[in-house]
Amino acid sequence: MSITLTAVPHLPLVKPGDDIAEMILAATSNAGIDIHDGDIFVLAQKIVSKAEGRLANLSDITPSAQAIDLANKTGKDARLVELVLSESNEVLRYRTNVLIVEHKLGFVCANAGIDHSNVKGLHGNPDDWMLLLPKDPDASAATIRRKIEKFTHKRIGVMIIDSHGRAWRNGTLGTVIGLSGMPGLVDLRGKPDLFGFKLKITQVAAGDELAAGASLLMGQADEGTPVVHVRGFPYPLREGSLKELIRPENEDMFR
Amino acid sequence: MSITLTAVPHLPLVKPGDDIAEMILAATSNAGIDIHDGDIFVLAQKIVSKAEGRLANLSDITPSAQAIDLANKTGKDARLVELVLSESNEVLRYRTNVLIVEHKLGFVCANAGIDHSNVKGLHGNPDDWMLLLPKDPDASAATIRRKIEKFTHKRIGVMIIDSHGRAWRNGTLGTVIGLSGMPGLVDLRGKPDLFGFKLKITQVAAGDELAAGASLLMGQADEGTPVVHVRGFPYPLREGSLKELIRPENEDMFR
Repeated sequence: MSITLTAVPHLPLVKPGDDIAEMILAATSNAGIDIHDGDIFVLAQKIVSKAEGRLANLSDITPSAQAIDLANKTGKDARLVELVLSESNEVLRYRTNVLIVEHKLGFVCANAGIDHSNVKGLHGNPDDWMLLLPKDPDASAATIRRKIEKFTHKRIGVMIIDSHGRAWRNGTLGTVIGLSGMPGLVDLRGKPDLFGFKLKITQVAAGDELAAGASLLMGQADEGTPVVHVRGFPYPLREGSLKELIRPENEDMFR
Repeated sequence: MSITLTAVPHLPLVKPGDDIAEMILAATSNAGIDIHDGDIFVLAQKIVSKAEGRLANLSDITPSAQAIDLANKTGKDARLVELVLSESNEVLRYRTNVLIVEHKLGFVCANAGIDHSNVKGLHGNPDDWMLLLPKDPDASAATIRRKIEKFTHKRIGVMIIDSHGRAWRNGTLGTVIGLSGMPGLVDLRGKPDLFGFKLKITQVAAGDELAAGASLLMGQADEGTPVVHVRGFPYPLREGSLKELIRPENEDMFR
């Protein structure tokens, strides 16, 4: 049993308005990557956000008193902090250079996933252009999936991932922010092990496990390989949602 | 660029005293898996613990007052709680059926990683036999690595992983508890992105990303495929340690 993760080569730089599904179909075809039933495409968040034009310019933003206060406490640009707050449900922690929030999408991450845009050819100071997360990443994944499925007549899954820090351990991990056509969580409850003991570890974050593995091929330093093709995901595909992976606040002991 | 993860087939059930490196060499040879420079073997913790005889019998354990108190609060067996405490630096959180600790090895996990042993042929009630984590998983990984390298004359990496829960999100993720000959953390600080912005995401938990991906092939319900062979890990191998991946308590905002 094998899983093969392949960085889709030669994907063009993504611009607002681009059709990601078409770009993936063209790039996989050029690279000789056949699409089979059960395959999954893992997409870096930034290309989906760019295609959807999820851009904001800091010079358009007037920070609130709360944003100015948090900017003073973190050493961050108050306009960026305002943007982070506008994308968040709640601030969980802050310190110098660090701002951890619950994003409106429900997950916990730094800076609400906002980063420099890296979009060429926009007016003004390029440092002022920021890229927000897709508004509804499950829906973005579903749209891309449907187009690829329609063209190929294959049943696939699509995930959108970002690099998230975590509690207790150093370094970022590729982490699901949206998915379609595949499980986020796989429930193994009640399966007996080899000797008939009921398993106590019950739910595997299969989507996040795949996100982490695929992230290895995306690197961090450029936009070279923001799409990874996956063959051999070992769990059955089904409809799924980011929501499976989010622990409700009242069940979370580490807020 | 591709990563291929392959579950090593037909590994025999591991017993105390077994030589894991020899078993991997035999199983890969039988399966026609060549070992190349740069390959990595990812091992489920339970086979390493079994080979090292890291077993404890609950009937040998007399719980302390603290263990009895925590057992009442969590609904767990007081002897198991005593065993968890003996493997831990600190209890972080507890509630019914949940006991989250800092393991003596430095990472945060549930129940100090202790589980039913699933070792056949031991005396007494099989429910009473528990499996502890390896005493020094970096050293265990190094021993297995050296043997495989000596036999193959190839430069490889070895990781030992376990399934860990996490803050904020549902489900477990395959997570490094020990490694040798490869990086846990990869530092990308200072690398400019496509447009010359300095990267702010700086450190990638490459070891944990690979652990999560490899964990997909191990499943949870049996011991069928506790070893995964990895080809195509995209970062250079070097000496490494679990310690890279542990966030020091004074830098952790979510204790």
